[in-house]
Amino acid sequence: MSAGKGLFVSFEGIDGSGKSTQARLLAEALRADGREVVLTREPGGSPGAEEIRALVLQGDPERWSAETELLLFTAARRDHLERTIQPALACGATVICDRFADSTRMYQGLSRGDLRRAVDTLHDLMIGVEPDLTILIDMDPAAALSRAKARATAEERFEDFGIGLQEKMRAGFLALAEEFATRFAVIDGNRAPEAVAEDVLAALKARA
Amino acid sequence: MSAGKGLFVSFEGIDGSGKSTQARLLAEALRADGREVVLTREPGGSPGAEEIRALVLQGDPERWSAETELLLFTAARRDHLERTIQPALACGATVICDRFADSTRMYQGLSRGDLRRAVDTLHDLMIGVEPDLTILIDMDPAAALSRAKARATAEERFEDFGIGLQEKMRAGFLALAEEFATRFAVIDGNRAPEAVAEDVLAALKARA
Repeated sequence: MSAGKGLFVSFEGIDGSGKSTQARLLAEALRADGREVVLTREPGGSPGAEEIRALVLQGDPERWSAETELLLFTAARRDHLERTIQPALACGATVICDRFADSTRMYQGLSRGDLRRAVDTLHDLMIGVEPDLTILIDMDPAAALSRAKARATAEERFEDFGIGLQEKMRAGFLALAEEFATRFAVIDGNRAPEAVAEDVLAALKARA
Repeated sequence: MSAGKGLFVSFEGIDGSGKSTQARLLAEALRADGREVVLTREPGGSPGAEEIRALVLQGDPERWSAETELLLFTAARRDHLERTIQPALACGATVICDRFADSTRMYQGLSRGDLRRAVDTLHDLMIGVEPDLTILIDMDPAAALSRAKARATAEERFEDFGIGLQEKMRAGFLALAEEFATRFAVIDGNRAPEAVAEDVLAALKARA
C-alpha cells in the first residue's frame, strides 16, 4: 500500500505473546516523540466492526461455519479499514493495529487448510491493503499459553486451545513471516517487555 | 447445482411485483399436491442470517459501505444455504426462496456498477449454487411502486425509491433473465394473483 501518507504497522503473534502490550508500548513511545498515533485492534476497531465482532464471538462456537465466519471477519475488516485505518493514514497518522489479515491467514489456514485460497481471494478482492510493517512477537508456546489462560475471558474462545495447537500457531506465523519477508520483522518475545519494546522501535526506525 | 435431490426455486422481481405472494401460492399448491416444501426468503432465512439481516437493515442507511454490505449479505446467504436450503434439498424437499443471488447482482450492480465483478467472484467463491428455476414476476413499475409504498415499513429502506429507479430495476432483472436464460422464467405479473399463479405452476412443471 499505502492509501495515505501515514505508516501502517500491524502486530501479530500467538495468544499470550505480549503483542497487545507491545502495540501499546510502541504507541506510547511514538506519541512521546510527538507523532500522531491511532492504536486499534481486530476483530473490531470501528463501531460497525465491533458489532460484527460481537455477532461472531458471542454464543455457541459452532454457530457459524468457517466460511461464514471468514465472510463476517472480512466485512468487519473492510469497515475497520474504511472508517478507522484509511482516514488516519490519509491524515498522516501512524496506525498501529493489534492483528490484521495475517491472523486470518493463520487461524483459518490452520483450522481449515483448504480455506487459504478463499482467504487470499477475498483479501485481494475486498481489502487489498497490507501493512507497511508487520511485527511478529515470537514467543515460547508454553509460556504464552499459561499467560493467555491466566487472563482469558468468556469471549476469548479462540484462546481455548492446548499446547499442541499453540505450537502449530507459532509455526504458522513464522511461515507467514517467511512468505511475506519484506514487510515482516520477527522479534524475540521471551524477554522483559522493555527489552522487546526496544527491538520493536528499532525495527520501525529501520523500515520507516 | 443441485446439492440434493430436491428442486430449488427462487422468485425475483421489483418491490411490489407480488413475488412474495406468488412464492406463498406456489408453496401452497405444491403442499396441496403432497410435496414437501420449504418456503424461505432473503436476506435472512436462517437464525444466523436473520441476525445479519437485522445488523445490515437497521439503523442509518449510510452505516455500511456498499462493499461491507455485500460481504454481510454474502455471509448471510452462506449461512442460509448451509443451515436451511441445502439440508432441505438433501431431504428431497422443494425449496422456494423469495429472492436469492440475482437480487444481489441486480441491486449492487445498479447502485454500484463497478461492484458486479466483486459480486460474481464472491458468489463463485463462497456460494457456488444457483436455483434450478428462477421465476421473475415482471410488473409495471408504477403499479408495483404504489403497492410497495402502501405496505412499506421502517425496515424496508430498500423500497424507498422513486419511479425512475423502479424502472431501472425492472430493466436490470430483465437483463439478468437474458443473461441466465436457461434457468429464468419471466411471468407477466400485471394480472390477478390467481392467473399469475397458474403460469408459475406451469413454468415449474415445464422445468421439473
